[in-house]
Amino acid sequence: MTDLTAIPLDPLATIATAVRSEHDLIGDRDVPADAYWGVHTLRAVENFPITGQPLSTNTHLVNGLAMVKQAAAQANHELGLLDDDRAAAIIQACQEIIAGELHEQFVVDVIQGGAGTSSNMNANEVIANRALEILGHAKGEYQFLHPNDHVNLSQSTNDVYPTAVNVATIFAATSLVAAMEYLGTAFSEKAVEFRTVVKMGRTQLQDAVPMTLGQEFNTYAVTMGEDRARLAESTLLVHEINLGATAIGTGLNAPKGYSELACRHLVEISGLPLVTSADLIEATQDVGAFVHLSGVLKRVAVKLSKICNDLRLLSSGPRAGFGEITLPAVQAGSSIMPGKINPVIPEVVNQVAYEVIGNDVTITMAAEGGQLQLNAFEPIIVHSLTKSMRHLEAACLTLADKCVRGITAHEDKLRAQVEHSIGLVTALNPRLGYAASTMIALEALSSDRGVAELVLEHKLLTAEQLEELLRPEHLANLSD
Amino acid sequence: MTDLTAIPLDPLATIATAVRSEHDLIGDRDVPADAYWGVHTLRAVENFPITGQPLSTNTHLVNGLAMVKQAAAQANHELGLLDDDRAAAIIQACQEIIAGELHEQFVVDVIQGGAGTSSNMNANEVIANRALEILGHAKGEYQFLHPNDHVNLSQSTNDVYPTAVNVATIFAATSLVAAMEYLGTAFSEKAVEFRTVVKMGRTQLQDAVPMTLGQEFNTYAVTMGEDRARLAESTLLVHEINLGATAIGTGLNAPKGYSELACRHLVEISGLPLVTSADLIEATQDVGAFVHLSGVLKRVAVKLSKICNDLRLLSSGPRAGFGEITLPAVQAGSSIMPGKINPVIPEVVNQVAYEVIGNDVTITMAAEGGQLQLNAFEPIIVHSLTKSMRHLEAACLTLADKCVRGITAHEDKLRAQVEHSIGLVTALNPRLGYAASTMIALEALSSDRGVAELVLEHKLLTAEQLEELLRPEHLANLSD
Amino acid sequence: MTDLTAIPLDPLATIATAVRSEHDLIGDRDVPADAYWGVHTLRAVENFPITGQPLSTNTHLVNGLAMVKQAAAQANHELGLLDDDRAAAIIQACQEIIAGELHEQFVVDVIQGGAGTSSNMNANEVIANRALEILGHAKGEYQFLHPNDHVNLSQSTNDVYPTAVNVATIFAATSLVAAMEYLGTAFSEKAVEFRTVVKMGRTQLQDAVPMTLGQEFNTYAVTMGEDRARLAESTLLVHEINLGATAIGTGLNAPKGYSELACRHLVEISGLPLVTSADLIEATQDVGAFVHLSGVLKRVAVKLSKICNDLRLLSSGPRAGFGEITLPAVQAGSSIMPGKINPVIPEVVNQVAYEVIGNDVTITMAAEGGQLQLNAFEPIIVHSLTKSMRHLEAACLTLADKCVRGITAHEDKLRAQVEHSIGLVTALNPRLGYAASTMIALEALSSDRGVAELVLEHKLLTAEQLEELLRPEHLANLSD
Amino acid sequence: MTDLTAIPLDPLATIATAVRSEHDLIGDRDVPADAYWGVHTLRAVENFPITGQPLSTNTHLVNGLAMVKQAAAQANHELGLLDDDRAAAIIQACQEIIAGELHEQFVVDVIQGGAGTSSNMNANEVIANRALEILGHAKGEYQFLHPNDHVNLSQSTNDVYPTAVNVATIFAATSLVAAMEYLGTAFSEKAVEFRTVVKMGRTQLQDAVPMTLGQEFNTYAVTMGEDRARLAESTLLVHEINLGATAIGTGLNAPKGYSELACRHLVEISGLPLVTSADLIEATQDVGAFVHLSGVLKRVAVKLSKICNDLRLLSSGPRAGFGEITLPAVQAGSSIMPGKINPVIPEVVNQVAYEVIGNDVTITMAAEGGQLQLNAFEPIIVHSLTKSMRHLEAACLTLADKCVRGITAHEDKLRAQVEHSIGLVTALNPRLGYAASTMIALEALSSDRGVAELVLEHKLLTAEQLEELLRPEHLANLSD
Repeated sequence: MTDLTAIPLDPLATIATAVRSEHDLIGDRDVPADAYWGVHTLRAVENFPITGQPLSTNTHLVNGLAMVKQAAAQANHELGLLDDDRAAAIIQACQEIIAGELHEQFVVDVIQGGAGTSSNMNANEVIANRALEILGHAKGEYQFLHPNDHVNLSQSTNDVYPTAVNVATIFAATSLVAAMEYLGTAFSEKAVEFRTVVKMGRTQLQDAVPMTLGQEFNTYAVTMGEDRARLAESTLLVHEINLGATAIGTGLNAPKGYSELACRHLVEISGLPLVTSADLIEATQDVGAFVHLSGVLKRVAVKLSKICNDLRLLSSGPRAGFGEITLPAVQAGSSIMPGKINPVIPEVVNQVAYEVIGNDVTITMAAEGGQLQLNAFEPIIVHSLTKSMRHLEAACLTLADKCVRGITAHEDKLRAQVEHSIGLVTALNPRLGYAASTMIALEALSSDRGVAELVLEHKLLTAEQLEELLRPEHLANLSD
Repeated sequence: MTDLTAIPLDPLATIATAVRSEHDLIGDRDVPADAYWGVHTLRAVENFPITGQPLSTNTHLVNGLAMVKQAAAQANHELGLLDDDRAAAIIQACQEIIAGELHEQFVVDVIQGGAGTSSNMNANEVIANRALEILGHAKGEYQFLHPNDHVNLSQSTNDVYPTAVNVATIFAATSLVAAMEYLGTAFSEKAVEFRTVVKMGRTQLQDAVPMTLGQEFNTYAVTMGEDRARLAESTLLVHEINLGATAIGTGLNAPKGYSELACRHLVEISGLPLVTSADLIEATQDVGAFVHLSGVLKRVAVKLSKICNDLRLLSSGPRAGFGEITLPAVQAGSSIMPGKINPVIPEVVNQVAYEVIGNDVTITMAAEGGQLQLNAFEPIIVHSLTKSMRHLEAACLTLADKCVRGITAHEDKLRAQVEHSIGLVTALNPRLGYAASTMIALEALSSDRGVAELVLEHKLLTAEQLEELLRPEHLANLSD
Repeated sequence: MTDLTAIPLDPLATIATAVRSEHDLIGDRDVPADAYWGVHTLRAVENFPITGQPLSTNTHLVNGLAMVKQAAAQANHELGLLDDDRAAAIIQACQEIIAGELHEQFVVDVIQGGAGTSSNMNANEVIANRALEILGHAKGEYQFLHPNDHVNLSQSTNDVYPTAVNVATIFAATSLVAAMEYLGTAFSEKAVEFRTVVKMGRTQLQDAVPMTLGQEFNTYAVTMGEDRARLAESTLLVHEINLGATAIGTGLNAPKGYSELACRHLVEISGLPLVTSADLIEATQDVGAFVHLSGVLKRVAVKLSKICNDLRLLSSGPRAGFGEITLPAVQAGSSIMPGKINPVIPEVVNQVAYEVIGNDVTITMAAEGGQLQLNAFEPIIVHSLTKSMRHLEAACLTLADKCVRGITAHEDKLRAQVEHSIGLVTALNPRLGYAASTMIALEALSSDRGVAELVLEHKLLTAEQLEELLRPEHLANLSD
Repeated sequence: MTDLTAIPLDPLATIATAVRSEHDLIGDRDVPADAYWGVHTLRAVENFPITGQPLSTNTHLVNGLAMVKQAAAQANHELGLLDDDRAAAIIQACQEIIAGELHEQFVVDVIQGGAGTSSNMNANEVIANRALEILGHAKGEYQFLHPNDHVNLSQSTNDVYPTAVNVATIFAATSLVAAMEYLGTAFSEKAVEFRTVVKMGRTQLQDAVPMTLGQEFNTYAVTMGEDRARLAESTLLVHEINLGATAIGTGLNAPKGYSELACRHLVEISGLPLVTSADLIEATQDVGAFVHLSGVLKRVAVKLSKICNDLRLLSSGPRAGFGEITLPAVQAGSSIMPGKINPVIPEVVNQVAYEVIGNDVTITMAAEGGQLQLNAFEPIIVHSLTKSMRHLEAACLTLADKCVRGITAHEDKLRAQVEHSIGLVTALNPRLGYAASTMIALEALSSDRGVAELVLEHKLLTAEQLEELLRPEHLANLSD
């Protein structure tokens, strides 16, 4: 049985001898004197030794929390609830975090109970202690500036955390959309490059009718474009925030006008066109936008996986497979089989897709488990969404750079397959009828002969008629 | 081991002595003389003895197939590919099916291999034989009008089937949207009825701060409204059809202009604003719109399940539970515990939700499994989507009529809980600060006393200040 | 919006003019005079208009309910709780149901709220009314023999229903195990038939090293055998029943000795080695065995799907694919492409597999949703498990009969591929080392030449050494 | 769009100025002079910038790889394929790794393409370079000891990697089983502590019949015990290894006797009773044991989640909820609501459960995606399984220590609820019959009176009869 104290996350492991004492409703605890986090964070670290992965690994979320805290401080200040000095100190602390500082102080585990309270308190404590320093006080002197009374003023975890998550999600999704566009461009370029490479199209893995390799790669570009549009649309849903809702959406303890003001400041700080939900009670308990977004990420995963399955199939061989295309060699494929090259890049993308699909189930269950006025399971939703978006982004970039851009086609082999195919008979269908065409196809199959020669032998068409009907470019419906 | 021949679907079980012989690429087979379906359907029935549930159970899909076939016949006729008599006969046959006739002739299993070919051929055969009758011929006299050469003219399963599925899906989704609106209205009416019923809001199942029961029910109405909007949006994606794509999207064997013409006729026949995909090759292999729609259905399921979890929780008791509301009694709850009433309607809705979530995984896998120019697994996608939409629709209607409309509230108990709650201390937070408020809360908890009396005892506020701060309507943020 | 009254299930649709009046805690209702079911069933039918699929479609479950009722009646009789006449009548009614009669009277929907109460009451009412007839009374004269007081004596839905489900599950699983054995045998026979057919083995879809087609098919037989063993083991878990637990496992209202006695009778009636759970309270709320079984069914589905993916891949072509084997033609493949044969049987098996995997998620959610002393969602668990087992069974039988048994191999092509393969170089690895072997492989690939000729050209080995090393049978590790 | 070069994993980021050049089939590359890994690892790190989580985070897997390499070296040495010096150096290097050294050299991403080849090559390179050092050579002087020719001798990734994964999985699962036992014991102790605390049992969230809180907690202990047994059983399946299978299971390039010998050594090194698969070809492509194990982990997750749902429900309140038990306060619950204590430990366990259930879907898809002679997606399977086991283990320990051990009961309230309950009427059912009992229950409900007083008022039983029937301990079926 693992000794949980061995999990590297434990911030006590790095305690210097110097400590300060802090107090909460359970009692007193020593925290390292140089830690910006305090007793709430300490207890959370001890309570959730699950993954060993601290909140700091989610940069967007740490930034999101700081942005929300800054917006709240500005609103509180303007509403006269926060004096100039404290407001300035809190705002400066938030800006430092947004600039990338103090992230290592966000030490609670990414999987945590408490609906995000520990993430929020981690932020409140870090910001309070940094603000205290700015004001010339020592860390922990909360009588001058308090994590709850000042940093968390007019706020609740239940509006701060979801709003920060929304901000983080938008940044991550936007980054993913760009990566998808990058991949789509790679496919488009190949579509142009392969526009005259005629090949057999296949349905149900059986030879069907001719097309071009360019058409095939263009399909992937089109698919990426559609999915990109869907992802962008569903990201719009996440722009609706519930800041000002406080505990359950009734806005208790948030002064009149706070909600609009805080939102306006957050728009400015984040640069995002956020809007306040029309119904804050609903917004506070609802995680529908995340379920929706995850469903769209799953769609993206399904498409990427399908495309990678195709790439692996088309490059199967080199000799006893489809052998239509060659993927660039990026590493030796085997520790025992010399010279073997494997489609490792599509394979890693497939695996990311499987992970995203699994994450969607996790998110679904967490969403369904929400009760009454709050969903307590938002941390696992955020963790899963974040992984899905990040890994998909890495997968898209890797697929574009390490695979798609270097794909080459075996043009001669592909054309020969078209000319030798039985599927050509489909083009004769309108002339010969389904029954006669079927007979020709079966004879070609059993005799291992060509469709054209059989048609001529049976005097069903003239050579000229045949040539016109069976021109591959015509079959592939290419504009001449 | 089950004897497959015992599965009731087997159409041979109903064979009269009279048969006719039909031929396909495998050979000759007798089919019942009075069957409108033919040899292709017969083989499919024998090949797929999976569920025992025939295609006829999917009324929308049978109609969708007939609509597509009629549109194709009209287009072919206008393009001069189909003569007047055959066109008229085919069109009449299709119209009869759309009017509800001959549905029992659609006998292939809903789960079938072959990417829908068997569904398409079942339609081709039924329509051909009915058209032959109309033209005064006997069934099976395909020399006069052929299932493939005439009914399927300019078509492939790979464009006909997805298009028919789209049409069917739109009808089913539209019906579901209406049911969701119906349920939303039921919630809205309760929200009005309960607008002054003050109660404790809860986060993480712990007493939080006050709200009204009307706000709680309004949340459900808002949620249903949002999901309805999302479902309507995602249904728009299904309006894009690939008719004219034929086998792989290159449009082989479909004459110039056919695609636009057939779409125009289908719009007229179905009354739906369908459009032809910009890229038919992509559209023919892509099932992204179904994955997307299923993801949204899953979202609806998650929300419905969450609401039903809430309803079951709020009505728990009658004495040792929350006991906030009473659901109408619709049946005796127990075979052993007399007088017990159970929340059977929310329970059945929960189960439908679980089914829909499972269906989404099925659809995801089927979508991911598609290869190259076609997804061969569309039948299970259609089957799963159809179940999800139908069962959700039934669940919404049942929940509205058998449960929501009859809910009553225990108003006195709810108000007493608010007044006795520790959560009231939250409202004192801005005045007393987090630390002092925490002390009051802990003392109230340990002494089983009220927050108000302790505040007065400790002389933290005057009675007048307290009364203003703790007015439930104020706390619930109700407009006075 | 669908008119729910149009759903065919509605038993009122078949009401003759004659009715009888029945009473429950809600009030009086007329039921058809000739119906064996009564007011509880009537209300359930009205409350759950979800699928339109009545309980009667689950033959094993109807039988299971009758077996449990018979066992309970025998135990009650022996314990002196039920007089001779009533006991005899109830037992006879149960036996008639087990013999296949009255199944059409089980009319409640397969998806239902109420933890199975409606299924249990449907059984209680049908048995009571049939027993009343046997005793010479009219249907509905419950003063002589009551559905609750006599048929349900010493029982609760919460022990009767799970026990009946267990019995039904064992029957269905046993049938599936037999079907898997049948399929395994089909693979084994092919393994023998193809034992000398040398071919290229592939890893990651790339040509690897030689093997035989017999080894490949033997793998499928071995896999089926392993899965069969796992399924049989997990079915053992379902042999533990909670009969005698009554409402929550405390056995309230069940007399001393009843539990053991009822179990003993059920063993005899069903022929199954059932045992009573050691902890009835745990057993009454736990659905772990179903989750477990579903997990194993999912494993079976994954394997079947993988095998079918392989079969489709190996038979891809006929000319522009792997083309290693030919699957038997069981129907025409395309409505537009004459002569095209598709792998429709593996395709339908894939789809069943996807369905089973989705069902597993449904079952998981339903299991997780159980609360406190009971899982209210057992009906959807049962429905999903039943579909999974039935459809897998049909899939195995169909795959064996319609596909595997008719597979043929392209022996010459396969041998040529081995001889021409680059993978042969692997066998030279121990002699030449990884680095030199890699060079040979790369040269073979770029020059499109053979490994053997290059080795000779570079004088790395003698012709004799080469021949010995590269003998395909040696490479495939066949015992000579 | 994220700059992939910023991902911290990149080993080039830590390059000192000194480098050495290495060569593979793609060309030459510089690697840091002090790195134990080489060119294959370098390319893999560049190819798979997915999670930023290196292989070294999976301690069990790194150890498993080293154990397998040591066993292989010993077998090769005994078979005369490896000389004394090289064997000794390789064995020592492996032992150092097993002792915990050099783990930081395992730098490839946990999600990787290539079926584990990069993990295997990372191990081969680290071991080779460490062995070279031991032999007095410089890193990279592979002419003296080669990663492929010596460290990987008689091996392929396709047998080494799965075997190492099996070893790692067994260690992790064993650790989880111990944690489950630890949690089970905590529940058992509470069951003893609460054995006389009478309370209402509930079905479908409605008051049912009495039981004790001890029985309720004992249920959780029993459940954990059952799941532990199932997990231990399914871990047995993972003891079957395919070492000696090499590339596809035919054992090509592994000498006669190697497989048995290597297994025997691995048994000794690992201390695990591993056995060689009867069919190595099947074993090499089959991941059924992982699917099976994941299914059982999902079962464990479902049960843990259900238990945590119950704990959260039973502790809901403190005043407007069930309020049956109090969970220990481990941190302040809210940033806005003073004194609020939330069930954060059960909540984090719920979230782990959701993650495990999602992981199961990921594993299912990866397993289904395997093709022909190998499953290329084992890395994501391993990654997902490892997370599931680790997080479940942490969840069990945390739940036991931070929650279960500190639970207290509200004994008086619970007894009062029993005495006031309507469910008591169930015990009168055998005396009064279902119909009369129902009337009493309905009257009690509508009049808010007690069952006992109504029975006496209606003179249905004497006070003595009542007292005997309604004794809670009797109702809960406690042995006196």
